[in-house]
Parts: sequence; C-alpha cells; structure tokens
Amino acid sequence: MRKAGRHFLQIPGPSAVPDRILSAISQQTIDHRGPDFAKVGLKALNGLKTIFKTEENVFIYPASGTGAWEAALVNTLSPGDRVLMFETGHFATLWKKLAEKLGLKAEFIEGDWRGGADPDRIEAHLAEDKGHEIKAVCVVHNETSTGSVSPIAAVRKAIDNAKHPALFMVDTISGLASLDYQHDAWGVDVTVSGSQKGLMLPPGLSFNAASAKAMAANKTAALQRSYWDWAEMVGPNKTGYFPYTPATNLLYGLNEAVDMLHEEGLDNVFARHARHGAAARAAVRHWGLEVLCATQGQESGVLTAVKMPDGHSADAFRASTLEHYDISLGNGLSKVADKVFRIGHLGDFNDLMLVATLAGVEMGLKKADVPHEEGGVQAAMQMLA
Amino acid sequence: MRKAGRHFLQIPGPSAVPDRILSAISQQTIDHRGPDFAKVGLKALNGLKTIFKTEENVFIYPASGTGAWEAALVNTLSPGDRVLMFETGHFATLWKKLAEKLGLKAEFIEGDWRGGADPDRIEAHLAEDKGHEIKAVCVVHNETSTGSVSPIAAVRKAIDNAKHPALFMVDTISGLASLDYQHDAWGVDVTVSGSQKGLMLPPGLSFNAASAKAMAANKTAALQRSYWDWAEMVGPNKTGYFPYTPATNLLYGLNEAVDMLHEEGLDNVFARHARHGAAARAAVRHWGLEVLCATQGQESGVLTAVKMPDGHSADAFRASTLEHYDISLGNGLSKVADKVFRIGHLGDFNDLMLVATLAGVEMGLKKADVPHEEGGVQAAMQMLA
Amino acid sequence: MRKAGRHFLQIPGPSAVPDRILSAISQQTIDHRGPDFAKVGLKALNGLKTIFKTEENVFIYPASGTGAWEAALVNTLSPGDRVLMFETGHFATLWKKLAEKLGLKAEFIEGDWRGGADPDRIEAHLAEDKGHEIKAVCVVHNETSTGSVSPIAAVRKAIDNAKHPALFMVDTISGLASLDYQHDAWGVDVTVSGSQKGLMLPPGLSFNAASAKAMAANKTAALQRSYWDWAEMVGPNKTGYFPYTPATNLLYGLNEAVDMLHEEGLDNVFARHARHGAAARAAVRHWGLEVLCATQGQESGVLTAVKMPDGHSADAFRASTLEHYDISLGNGLSKVADKVFRIGHLGDFNDLMLVATLAGVEMGLKKADVPHEEGGVQAAMQMLA
Amino acid sequence: MRKAGRHFLQIPGPSAVPDRILSAISQQTIDHRGPDFAKVGLKALNGLKTIFKTEENVFIYPASGTGAWEAALVNTLSPGDRVLMFETGHFATLWKKLAEKLGLKAEFIEGDWRGGADPDRIEAHLAEDKGHEIKAVCVVHNETSTGSVSPIAAVRKAIDNAKHPALFMVDTISGLASLDYQHDAWGVDVTVSGSQKGLMLPPGLSFNAASAKAMAANKTAALQRSYWDWAEMVGPNKTGYFPYTPATNLLYGLNEAVDMLHEEGLDNVFARHARHGAAARAAVRHWGLEVLCATQGQESGVLTAVKMPDGHSADAFRASTLEHYDISLGNGLSKVADKVFRIGHLGDFNDLMLVATLAGVEMGLKKADVPHEEGGVQAAMQMLA
Repeated sequence: MRKAGRHFLQIPGPSAVPDRILSAISQQTIDHRGPDFAKVGLKALNGLKTIFKTEENVFIYPASGTGAWEAALVNTLSPGDRVLMFETGHFATLWKKLAEKLGLKAEFIEGDWRGGADPDRIEAHLAEDKGHEIKAVCVVHNETSTGSVSPIAAVRKAIDNAKHPALFMVDTISGLASLDYQHDAWGVDVTVSGSQKGLMLPPGLSFNAASAKAMAANKTAALQRSYWDWAEMVGPNKTGYFPYTPATNLLYGLNEAVDMLHEEGLDNVFARHARHGAAARAAVRHWGLEVLCATQGQESGVLTAVKMPDGHSADAFRASTLEHYDISLGNGLSKVADKVFRIGHLGDFNDLMLVATLAGVEMGLKKADVPHEEGGVQAAMQMLA
Repeated sequence: MRKAGRHFLQIPGPSAVPDRILSAISQQTIDHRGPDFAKVGLKALNGLKTIFKTEENVFIYPASGTGAWEAALVNTLSPGDRVLMFETGHFATLWKKLAEKLGLKAEFIEGDWRGGADPDRIEAHLAEDKGHEIKAVCVVHNETSTGSVSPIAAVRKAIDNAKHPALFMVDTISGLASLDYQHDAWGVDVTVSGSQKGLMLPPGLSFNAASAKAMAANKTAALQRSYWDWAEMVGPNKTGYFPYTPATNLLYGLNEAVDMLHEEGLDNVFARHARHGAAARAAVRHWGLEVLCATQGQESGVLTAVKMPDGHSADAFRASTLEHYDISLGNGLSKVADKVFRIGHLGDFNDLMLVATLAGVEMGLKKADVPHEEGGVQAAMQMLA
Repeated sequence: MRKAGRHFLQIPGPSAVPDRILSAISQQTIDHRGPDFAKVGLKALNGLKTIFKTEENVFIYPASGTGAWEAALVNTLSPGDRVLMFETGHFATLWKKLAEKLGLKAEFIEGDWRGGADPDRIEAHLAEDKGHEIKAVCVVHNETSTGSVSPIAAVRKAIDNAKHPALFMVDTISGLASLDYQHDAWGVDVTVSGSQKGLMLPPGLSFNAASAKAMAANKTAALQRSYWDWAEMVGPNKTGYFPYTPATNLLYGLNEAVDMLHEEGLDNVFARHARHGAAARAAVRHWGLEVLCATQGQESGVLTAVKMPDGHSADAFRASTLEHYDISLGNGLSKVADKVFRIGHLGDFNDLMLVATLAGVEMGLKKADVPHEEGGVQAAMQMLA
Repeated sequence: MRKAGRHFLQIPGPSAVPDRILSAISQQTIDHRGPDFAKVGLKALNGLKTIFKTEENVFIYPASGTGAWEAALVNTLSPGDRVLMFETGHFATLWKKLAEKLGLKAEFIEGDWRGGADPDRIEAHLAEDKGHEIKAVCVVHNETSTGSVSPIAAVRKAIDNAKHPALFMVDTISGLASLDYQHDAWGVDVTVSGSQKGLMLPPGLSFNAASAKAMAANKTAALQRSYWDWAEMVGPNKTGYFPYTPATNLLYGLNEAVDMLHEEGLDNVFARHARHGAAARAAVRHWGLEVLCATQGQESGVLTAVKMPDGHSADAFRASTLEHYDISLGNGLSKVADKVFRIGHLGDFNDLMLVATLAGVEMGLKKADVPHEEGGVQAAMQMLA
C-alpha cells in the first residue's frame, strides 16, 4: 500500500535534497573537456571555498566521504607515520581503522562518546612527543554518531601550545554548511567533507581543503596514491577542469547548493541549525530521555542522539516509527547500537519540519510503548514561537 | 533572504503536488494525433471513471474548475431555464452568478455557510414546482469556502421524493478523491471537478461526468457552446483522442495520480482525510476557537475553516504566519472575508505534515497575539498516535 | 521493443519542449492568491506583451487555442453579427464553423489552400458592405494546415482602404514567436495564440491580445460569456492575479519561454525559422515533390506542407516513417487529407535537427517506395552551411 | 546569445543522458541503511550482472572510471608485480601510468593506435615469461581514443595457449552496453567499466566485475587499499547495501538504464551500434578522410576517430563546428592531439541523430575550409535506409 505524503528523512545525512538541487542535477550532462564546462568547474571550486572559508586549494572527488578521508591521509603521509586521533565516536573510530589499513600508526585518545575532542588531552599527548614523530592530528568536527561537536579552534590552539608541527586534519563531513567552519582562520591543514549533509546534495561527491603546509607535505608523502592525488588536480583545476571525468551532474547540484546557502546567508544557516538543536533537546528532555552528548556547549545543531531507556530497543522503536509515521531516524552505531537513536535536523529544514520530526518521535514513542512524558513537541514549540 | 525547507501549502487547493506527478508532467510532449497518444488518452478517461465511480461519460477540459462549471450548464440547459441552487458558501454563490451570467434563472436557497445543502428544503422547493419548470438542481459537495459537506445521496433522495425530473448537478471540485463520491450510485447527472485538489495535480484540467439523462439533455440544450460541447468530445474520446489539442503533460500527471490513489486504495484515502479532519478540529477546539462548520456530521476532511476571535484580522494572522512559519493558509471569502482562515489538509498528506500544519497555526496564533489555549497540536497528536 | 534515442516530434505543434521549460513546469505549485504569485503572474502578462509586441491588454486562459478563438469572438460580437473570414485552409475553416456555432453569420472568401489571405479580395468584399454590417475580419496568420502565411499588415491596409470599421482579428496560434508579429504596429484588434508552438510550451495555455477598440466592443458585445470574459480578467491581472485558478505550472513554463526567446533575440528566432523553411523547401524541390504553398513570399518558416505524388497515401508514408525512423510528421487535414504531409520546423530547433528531420523524410520516402530524387538532405545542407 | 535546439553531445562519452534516466536520478534520496534501500541496491547489483554477463561479483563505486582502473589493480596485485599491457591508445597508456604510479612494473607492448590488442604478440610475450612473474594481462576492449576494438575472447585464448596463470583484466569503460561483452564466457578475471558511456548515465559511478580467481587474489594482494577494497563490499552487497554511503541517485539512474537496455534487447543495442559505426565510416570515406582504426573488423561501433588532413588543425575544426552547429566532437589525445577528431555514436542514439551528427561534421568541414568530398551524409543515409 502506498504511503501518502512526504517521507521525513531525518537521519543525520543524507539530508532531504531540495527540489532546486534535484532539478539542477537533472540537467543534461555536458562535455567535461568543452569550453562551457570551465564555468561549471570554476564555479564549483570557487563556491566551495566560500563554504570552507578558505582561499587555499579545495579538491572535489567523485566519491563518498570515506574516499575524502582516505585522500587526506594518502596525500600527506608516509607508511608508518604516527597520527593522533581522538575517539569522539563511531566515525572517529572508522577513520582510525582506515589509517591503520593504509599502514599508518594511529594513536587513539579514548573518549566516552559524550562530547567532542578534548584539546587539553591532545596538548598533553603532543607535549610528550618530543621527537615530533606524530605527523598529523585528526579530529572529527561534528561526530555524526553522537551529536557532539569538537572545538576545532581550541584544538588548533592546543597544537600550537605544544609547539608541535603535526598537520591538523579535520573531518567536517556532517558539520560543513550547518555549523560554522573556518578552514583558514582556524589553521586547519586538511579539511574533509562530503555532499550529502549540510550541502543538501545526494551522496557522490566528497572534498578536501588543503593548506599550503599540507600541499608541501604532498610532495614528500610516500603513501601510494593516484585517484586521490592532489598533485594531479591542481593544474586542471586552475581553469575549472579535472584530471579525470568529474561527476558533472552532481557539480550542477553543488553550484545550486552554494547559491542557496548564500541566499539564506551562512550565518543564518548556522543560527537555524543551532536553534533547531536547542528545540530538539528541549523536547528530548521533556520526554524524560537523555541526550547522548553530555558536554555542555558541544551539543550539535545537526543531529540529536537520544539514549533509549533501558530495556527498550532503539532499533525496534525506529522500525515501528518508520512504519507508522513514515519517518527515518538514525540508528545507534557500534558501541551504542540499539541503545541510541539519532534525530537529524540538518540541511534544507525549517521550524515546521522540525515540529513534524519531533512529533514523529513522540508519537512513535507512544506507539512503541516507550515510557515518556508527553508534551515534548509542545516544549519545542515554546522555543520556536 | 531565502527561506529554508519546504513551504507548507495548506490552502484547500491547489494542494502540494507530489514528486511523482511533477516528474510525470515534465515528460516530453507527444503528438496528440499519433498512435502512442491513444494509450495516454484512454488511460486518463478510463482512470477518471474509477475515481468518479461512474461507467458513464467523463469529459476532460484543458481549463480551470470554473470552466467545468460552465460546461455543466451550457451542455444541458437553455436560455431562461430555471435552476435551483443552494447557498452553502462562496463557491455555491459563484456558481449561481455564473448561471445568471449565462442567462439562466437561478433560484437560491439561502444558507448560513455553516453546513451543507439541506435535502428537506430542496425537496420542499421542488415540491412547489408543480410544472417542473426547474430544469436542474445544483449542489456543492465539499464547499471549499466553509469546510462543510453536503449529503449528496440524500439530496438525490429529496429530488426523487419530490418526483421531480430536474437534472441533478454536483460540484465536487474540492471533494473528489478526498471524500467518497459515487456519480452513478448516487444518481448524479452532471458532476463537476478539477485537478488541483484531491487529484494532487497542478491546476489546468477540469472535468465533467455526465449521466445518460444529461447526455440526452445535451441534444436539446440551446445554450450556445463550442469549446465545452460534450457532443464534440464523445466521438474522439472513444479511441482516446480529443477534438482539440489536449493538455498532454497534465494528462501524464492525471494518469500518475490515478495510479497513486489506487496504490493507496480509495477507501484508505477517504479514511485518511476523515481522520485528519477530526484531528484538525480537535486542535481548533483545544485552542478555544470555533470551527465554521456547525453541522455535526458535515465537517469536511478536506479543510477546516476556523473563525477568528472578534477583533482579530484573519488576513493579518495569515500574513504573519506565512512570514514566520512559511505556511500558506486559505483566506475567508466574501461574507466571511478576514473573519475566517482555512486549513487545507488534503491531497498527498500524512500525519506528520498535519502536525506541522497545526503547529504552524498554533505558533502563528502566538506570534500574532491571538488569544488561544496552547496545546492544540498535542491534542491532535492524541488522536493520531 | 524500446526505440533508442530521441523521438523527432516534427508536427507543426506541439513542438518539442526544451528541458528548461520542462524543468520550469515541474516546480512546486504555489498559492495563486498568495504574495509570491504576483511576481509569476505579472512576469507572464508583461512578458507575453513583448512577444505579441503590444502595450495593450493580453489575456491568458487555461485552455487550448480553440478556446482563445472562442474568446476572441464572444468578447466582441453579438448574436447574428456578420464576420468576414478567409479560407486559407483547415484552421480558417474550423474558426468559421466555430463562429457559426456561436450564432454569428460568417462570410467566407474561398481560397485554394495554397497561399495566405488576399488583401485585395478582402478590400473588395468590405467595400461592398456600405452599411458596415460586417463587424469583424478574421484572418489566420500562419495557416498550420498548409504552411502559408497571410500578409497581416497588408490586410490591415485593405481594411483601412475600404474605410471599414470592422474589428480585425488574427489567429497566430502557430505563428507567434516563430514569425514576426506586431499586434500594435499592424493595427490588429484581437490576436489569438497558444502555448505549444513557437512558445515551446506543452499545450494548455492560450492567449488573446486586445486593442482599445476591442476592449470597447467588449462592453456591448451580447454573446454570452463567463469563462472567457475579458472584463473579469482586467482587474485581477493588474496586480498579477487571475479571476479563477490559473494553470500555475504552465505559467512557470511561459516565463521561462519568454526569457529564452529574448536570450536568443526575437529577430534571431525569426531569421532561424525563415532559414529553416527555405532549406526545407530546397529539399522538397530536390526530391521532385511539390510544396503546398504556391504563393511566392508566403511560404511559412514554421512548417512545410508537401504534396504526395498521385497514387501514394501520405498517411501510409507517415506511419511507415514513424515506425522506421521514429519521427512524427503532420497529416493532411480535411480537403488535403492523405494527400499532404507536413514537416514542422518550429520552436526550439536548430540546423542539425532540421537535417535529421529532412533525412527522416527522405529515408522514409525510400522505405515507402515513394518516387523521389535522392539528395534533398544534401541540398538543404548546402543552404545551411 | 542563446543557441536554439538540442546540443549534440557527440564525444565518445559522456553520452547524452536520456530523459528517463535524468528523471530517475532526480528522485528524492532515501536512507541508504533503511529497508527500502535493499531493493534499490539489489536491483543495481543484479542488473549490472546481466550487462557484464556474469554470475560472479560486481562492485559499484561512487567514482569515475579511473577509480575502477585503480580498484582492479589494488585489489589483486602486490607492489612490484609485473603486469603486461598493450598500447592500443591513450587510455591504455594512462592505465599503464596508473599501474606504475601504484608501484607495479608495467610491460607495454607497443602499438600504432590503429587497431586493438594483438593476441599473437601477447601470447608470444607470455610464452617468454617461463617463471610466470607476470601477474596480470591488461587490455582495453574499446579504446576510446582511437575507435578500435580488441578481440577479448582471442586474447583469452592467447593466454591459455601460453598456459600462463596471469589474471586477465579488461577495461570496457566505453564498450560495455554498446558492444557485446561477456565477462564469464570470455574468461575475464577483472572487468572495469563506467556509467557515462553505453549505460547512458551521468559520470559518477564505476564498476568492477571479478572472477573467483580474482577474488582469491584479493586475499593475498599486498597493495594498500581501503575505499576500493572488494573484501569490504562483499558482505553488505549480499543484501543490497554498501560499506559506505553509495551514490543513491545515480543508482536510481543505473536501475533505469538496465531496464531500458533490456527493453530494447542487448542484441539490438549491439546491432544498432555496429550499424551506426558502419554508416559513420561510410561517410568518412566518402569525404575522402581516413578512419584512424586501420584494422579491418576492429572498427568500433561506439565512436569513429577520423584523421585530419595534413595542414589542418583538428581542434580548430572542432571549435568552429561547435560554434556553428552546436555539436561537441571528441579531441585527439596525446600522440594524435590536434590530428584526429572523434565522432561518438553511442548510448541512447538513433538513425536520425546519427545523420544529424554526420551533417554537423560535414557542414563543419565546409565551414572550416577543410578539403572534402560533399555527400558523406547521403552515403550514410544509403546504409541506414
């Protein structure tokens, strides 16, 4: 039986793609070597810089975010290099595993998944590395598995305090274009991101932004690379072209997305996400449930991860809620599998869509007989009106 | 400044068009005289019959609903003919004016805009017409200006009780495909409808269904007609063609719409609208506001018209709510202008969209300082969960 | 079995709709009474004036071109009025029948379907009408059934020469936006047009442009009208609105179409059609076939009607060509049924599409064993290169 | 100034994307971990197998074809491994450079770019490798830079004749779904392909098909890999999921493409391409120009590369032709830069589109004053009619 009305895709990415972008990606493909393509390519590369807030190089891959993680590492490091990573959650853990798979030695500062990366612990760890053997510090900006945000500028300061020369790499796959992000001002060397979150595109594109220091590291980095190699990209990118066939139609979408973000105003976009995060947490607390992020000031505007009451399966709740209210919620991952569900409130989203989302959760809790205090939606509305 | 997220188009039509239909209407136009067109045309004509629940002729016009009103009259009546109409609200009044403009003598049973047509008063009126000079009884099924539903089967019975031979004409422009409707079983002679309500299409198509008795009347009806003339349509329609260029792309959409309705099941579609109407009224009553329809059992599942508290402008409230929450509500028309606003809950719609809609109204009331009891959204959720 | 590649829709309208317009019409429908609609409506009305080359009123109907024919007559004439029409072909004949159906007395200057309207004969006819009983002169600009163009400015001059006060009405349904047309400069009182030809839209919209003299006639015209009544439109149109629900999504397409025409430049559009008409005729003549339009200087840039050699069925040829080369050609109508086929070369069209079209005809002639000289395509290419 | 009509994208890929596929990729993105996704993923994986003609594993990457080249190598080989490659043209050369960049020792059998790979020379080369140090033989099926086709089954036989255990890898990026290809029957171990050629999709997806022998090699292959690793894919793929976020919207398009290919019938698709290649070559020869592929029976049905007469710049000709006739032709690459232009006749293409394409070339030759015999288009039409 057909379900009427719009599905609510409230996982923390892919976010629902707005019509303007769907329309843009359905334009006819053009010759990626022809004269008209230069406009598309240059607009994409330059537009992306305004979102990363960088004047340095950005790179666009036809790939998922996982590919851009790999690109960040293979472009700058050599086999056996030590890298420092921080366990903010599932995605930080995956990135660490990827580093190891590539032959790097990853040192993992353990975390409890209830907050962002801790600058003090990073500083302390680096301070002990007198020989500067650690070549990179890798931090997840918005940890999609927990809804916690790492203080990137403070981590930069920690590295500086330790007078450590390591490259600073940040994954803001799910943070970019939802939370403020400043590649240049925050002194990040390599930023990793993707298309299907704040940028509101379908999945299929991912990005690196690279500082001059990172570009220099690329020249000596010995990890094998070809598809991901920045060195091959720089030349063609200057005139808006790519060394291999780009995902032209997704670039159309990217250009539309950047226009849309600036039409709203980046600061307005960030404020909107922050406001929706606050309203979502108000609802969660009203229900008597616990927000996974336990660190004040680090709660995400992108998603809210919610702890399921003991004795209740988060996945059973999600399945029931999907069936009854046609809303997709994010699942708990690895350590918190079945114990947490995640509410995405990112991308092309507004107040009424948030109320609908929270109503889906509240009615879903009722339908699944999960104990909760009714009225969370109304509590959120108090904050929105 | 761009507004993020989806606009909520909650006027009682046009309803928001689902992606499947937008995609269908954006297919390439074909030769409306070529062999492939027959499939499109026959599917549209036959599909529409399943929605009108008729085995008689249906006619498709490239026109608005107003055109189909005119078609119903000019195809069956002659200058100076008397027609009996019932003042259910603004649209019944417009239809009456149209009849008069065409040279018919319209007799209008006055109503208070707070319920559907009254079969008893119709029967009484007809009973007095011993000479059977009244040639048609015209009733609006779902009065879009008030949210009241006329009991069509009961009106048929009233006509029969009066043993009156008048044609029975029904406007279900905003009722079809949202409320149960049975052209054949209810003995309607001419049904009028349109594309942009329960059928979920953009505006641009309108319809007549005609009984054998109506087709017979067409042969002698003296009102001048050409564009609207059924007689020109019948022949070409038999093989799926039209006497003049049809609105091919909207027909693509119509065929998709009929498929979608049957995939959901018409009875499920009707139950959904009824359930959403009940939940909307629960919210309105919780707010302490009054539903315009005051006749129990005649409240519409398509829309809910709400009386504004004295001293408050419904239009100012609507403008403010549109600005702050990006939701379009329907305005009060003529007699109830600025005194009523209308909440559309029709078409491709679901529980979470209804909650969002009601939240838009409730937050809008707060923002516009209209006195109300908070918690209407929660009251609606009680009914939905 | 699926046919690969693009179908060639080379009937003289609907013309193939360009992607930009299909994309425009698939945007979400909005509230036609809301503040955002005014921009859409005003852009449509004002944009259309630049295409009609008028500063007078234009009217947009959700209707086919047949409806706009009817609108022109019912808005300005009274039952029994005499109208002078010229038999340029099938569509002129249909318009005459429509006039008669509406109760007008149509006088038809007979033509041989091989040229446009003859100003001298019109002048002579009017000169005899000393009492000025003829209320309107109706001429088809581009006769879609024959591919002949009437000299509109010369007809105006003929009316003036006869010092006759009749309204001058012109059908340029298939001429507008392909051939130069000047409503104001040429002194036309009512112009009739439609969406699916030079305007490159799907069918579903049609238009009137009306001079001050026509608007004055509207006040006294006694033909019954409601849907078509200009008087109802003028007020709402001033601010971009319509008296009844407009075909919003087709208006999106209209606005895109007008932008596209101006991006190319109207004069370039006209020159392109003229050039393609000349190349098509060169091919036809090379094949040894005869162009239906036999009047030098009146051959259309919109379509070329071709006479079939005796003993060969044009319809059999068209069916065979459609099957083998996936190209739709126009059929001969009424008097020339099965004796003529029509090649449309209008709308969003270019040199290579024209070559493909002519190749479809030439290969089709060969496949259907119709005697012809090969090399017509090459002859056309000579003119294009 | 806007150019009217359709652009002809006649490079040998990306090919013009048909509307059905553009419409498919513009559907809303869904949760790639949710229950509905399984249907999309399984259909894509299983559908692709019918195109590769394999019952073994296929892998889908959000990546360009270059990525799938890399995947083939890193999944099966170890640093320092010797691989035998055949210089069919530019793309074979690029693949060789990629192999070297990854740390493999590539042995390159030189070719003159005027035919496919020579099985005899491969057999001879392998026969000398007594120690079986060569781990893979890599051949390009359809060399996109030259328009020559390698005899894949014969190469397989050559390897078998040499009793050599090397893996057999084939790049059919531009051959798949245009030319017959049989992964299983031809005993290929790894097939590499992409989305934007015969599959008619926009660029952004690429593929591997892997034999059991290749899967076994994966277990011991020491080249570093993560994004490309088959081992991570196999498990999730079984139920239709992917280890990282897939390019969901392109998968929608892939599913549509596979349906379209089967609706036409693969054998019909292949015959169509062969027929169009033959007609294109007839035109080239008529013009008095030379087809780059000089090996009878190895000319491609996908594209025709044409040698420019001495003293004329192919790139200047292409630029002029693009400007005047709005057709994109492929450029000559590396060794044949500016000396060759390439005519793509692949993907969703038909007879009339081919004639238009050839007319674009012929009129372009004339416009650019390139000496040629007129009438090539007519010569092609002789073969098509």
